[in-house]
Amino acid sequence: MSIVEKPRGTRDFSPAEMHGRDYVEGMISRTLETYNYRKILIPTFEHAELFKLKSGEEIEEHMFVFKDKANRELCLRPEATASVCRMFSGELQMMQRPLKLYYSCPMFRYEEPQKGRYREFWQMGVELIGAETPESDAEVISLASECLKKLGIEFKLEINHLGILRGVLDDLDIKGEKQDKALALIDRKNFEELKKIADNGNFFELIKLTGGRDVLENASSLLNGCVAGMEASGELGQITSWLDAMEIDYIINLGIARGLAYYTGTVFEIRVSELGAQSQICGGGRYDDLIGLFSGVKTPAVGFAFGFDRVMNATELQKIEIPEKKTDIVVAPVSADVRIDAAKIASKLRDNFIVDFDLMGRKLGKILEYAGNIGARYVIIVGSEDMKNNSITVRDMGTGEQKKVKIENVEMAIKKILL
Amino acid sequence: MSIVEKPRGTRDFSPAEMHGRDYVEGMISRTLETYNYRKILIPTFEHAELFKLKSGEEIEEHMFVFKDKANRELCLRPEATASVCRMFSGELQMMQRPLKLYYSCPMFRYEEPQKGRYREFWQMGVELIGAETPESDAEVISLASECLKKLGIEFKLEINHLGILRGVLDDLDIKGEKQDKALALIDRKNFEELKKIADNGNFFELIKLTGGRDVLENASSLLNGCVAGMEASGELGQITSWLDAMEIDYIINLGIARGLAYYTGTVFEIRVSELGAQSQICGGGRYDDLIGLFSGVKTPAVGFAFGFDRVMNATELQKIEIPEKKTDIVVAPVSADVRIDAAKIASKLRDNFIVDFDLMGRKLGKILEYAGNIGARYVIIVGSEDMKNNSITVRDMGTGEQKKVKIENVEMAIKKILL
Repeated sequence: MSIVEKPRGTRDFSPAEMHGRDYVEGMISRTLETYNYRKILIPTFEHAELFKLKSGEEIEEHMFVFKDKANRELCLRPEATASVCRMFSGELQMMQRPLKLYYSCPMFRYEEPQKGRYREFWQMGVELIGAETPESDAEVISLASECLKKLGIEFKLEINHLGILRGVLDDLDIKGEKQDKALALIDRKNFEELKKIADNGNFFELIKLTGGRDVLENASSLLNGCVAGMEASGELGQITSWLDAMEIDYIINLGIARGLAYYTGTVFEIRVSELGAQSQICGGGRYDDLIGLFSGVKTPAVGFAFGFDRVMNATELQKIEIPEKKTDIVVAPVSADVRIDAAKIASKLRDNFIVDFDLMGRKLGKILEYAGNIGARYVIIVGSEDMKNNSITVRDMGTGEQKKVKIENVEMAIKKILL
Repeated sequence: MSIVEKPRGTRDFSPAEMHGRDYVEGMISRTLETYNYRKILIPTFEHAELFKLKSGEEIEEHMFVFKDKANRELCLRPEATASVCRMFSGELQMMQRPLKLYYSCPMFRYEEPQKGRYREFWQMGVELIGAETPESDAEVISLASECLKKLGIEFKLEINHLGILRGVLDDLDIKGEKQDKALALIDRKNFEELKKIADNGNFFELIKLTGGRDVLENASSLLNGCVAGMEASGELGQITSWLDAMEIDYIINLGIARGLAYYTGTVFEIRVSELGAQSQICGGGRYDDLIGLFSGVKTPAVGFAFGFDRVMNATELQKIEIPEKKTDIVVAPVSADVRIDAAKIASKLRDNFIVDFDLMGRKLGKILEYAGNIGARYVIIVGSEDMKNNSITVRDMGTGEQKKVKIENVEMAIKKILL
């Protein structure tokens, strides 16, 4: 036990954990890159005002805010989209559109730590900037779905279009901050409070509609001729047609509202039921007004973020197999006089293999024990008698078999078996 | 220009920059992994006291310290070694020794930003825990050298053993904090202030010795029979013998002292002359007493860290070629009726290629312009007449040549050229 503990809600990641995380991150990154999305990175801390612009109450309440020595209010990033918009308004404005971007980095929220909820947590996310066609929304949704399929994770994807809810709320004269509040309450499923703001039977029926494309038909009667709502419903119809063509499974759920205040159009969430209370592993949507706040030029955009820690939890709960990382070879000098020769052999083998070398000056028995414990595949035993004949002994740690091999053939011998 | 700027000393990284950084990080990671070092990760912020234990004045002065809502003093990590020791004292203590660990993450120091110096900067580092043989030091030094060689960077590696300096200072009765201060002054080459603490001619001659292995011989007369100093010099001799055998170039420089107070033995620095005032791209050494502070059990350790941003600068200044990331294919639907077919072709091709799909509903000419601007290799033109014959047109963006290909043969046709 250390005399100084790590801060609440933070984690250390061991080699085994990092191997798993790197594997999953790599799989998602590669999938995003086949769609020509390219990685960017934003600062770990920002001016706090950046997130006060439009990230919404939910996020603002839980920010890690602190002052620097010049008394400026800084903040550990609670999410990436506001930063990406800031970045876009600067150096990225000149790039070819649409911009296809992704990021992978930790975020910070000052919340009570609990299962699946940390103060430092990771997100991998996508932002598609400059495109407003239905196929843009469809691509981003497909992308989220595709990443999880590549990992073999089973999930449920739910879609909505905030234009439907905002349209009806507008017609009910629930606008501005009050409207954002209503959406936040729908997101938290706090219907009691919602009733105080929007006590309308049709609206309550609407936000409970969920199912296949028939939802859109059922909605139309509840929309009461709301023009904006009908238009949004039509857009959602186009987007889901694309998803059908791309064979992406989804559920339309008119009660999906998202916690962030900047969404303007499509919104979607992905859940993994095994995760219980923290089942949401992905959330996203269209935010056509956010970039304009920063750059002064209205620019359409759509994106999503994976809660990476929850994706990791999902792989565990669904027993997704992550290939083990094995040490190929441990090089074991039998006596002090061959240590340098053995080190040179290790060095040569590193061109092709993961090679450990005994740094402790241990006896052979102990090195074999070490190699067994770290799960190495082979041990190369370097003895002084053997070295006189330019040979070494290769021991297969799986079978225990040993074979004498000429040094110049070692690489070939192990390559034959391993590669 | 955005209405909110990024904080001073922080940076955004564009897709092109991130591609370069990922390439270099990947090259270093793979090199470390061939030596069986494994990645770990530590929290972005820690309790501030963690770094007050032994990181030294230089670091403590420049920490980003802030209080959380429970009034605990937290701090953005200024370096990783203290965190790794904390982590080791907890969950890693049971692992097989030696532990071979590496990390890659941003660090934070509140300093005046200038060329090559940022408030958020990246380090990639190695910690070898539990081994105290000379070959352990030699392996860690070789590893730093090997990573840079793999990248093709030219550099200068300088080594010292703090036992020599500490031994002589002990004999001069300059101990404890005063000794740490003297070492910090040597590190900063502030010889005027140093003279006030350690006004000894031999000592000043000693710390100016630099060169090959003859330095150790020249030192011995200046050591005045200092037993600890002679012993440290002997150790340095053993370590450099290993480096000679492994064909690692180095300079012994008895004036290398490092800014961190926790080093106890070997210390080394790597410099790239083109970088000017911020020429140091790597620093490391042995710290046998630090882990004991946390765990109560003395545990030898040796490590180093690359200043990753400076490594990136070095690749630029030395014109190291970083392979470009190319978009393989842009899929261009000629008319609205083939957009879904085109999207399906794009989707299929993503099994093997990086494939962009026009999301803007642009005309063919505009798509070709876009493809040219993003540097795509091929455009696949999908027209409705062609689709009736199950064919598409492949345009080589390099030569401008176009060829009609049956859909089922597209993949093979492009594979032949690209893979």
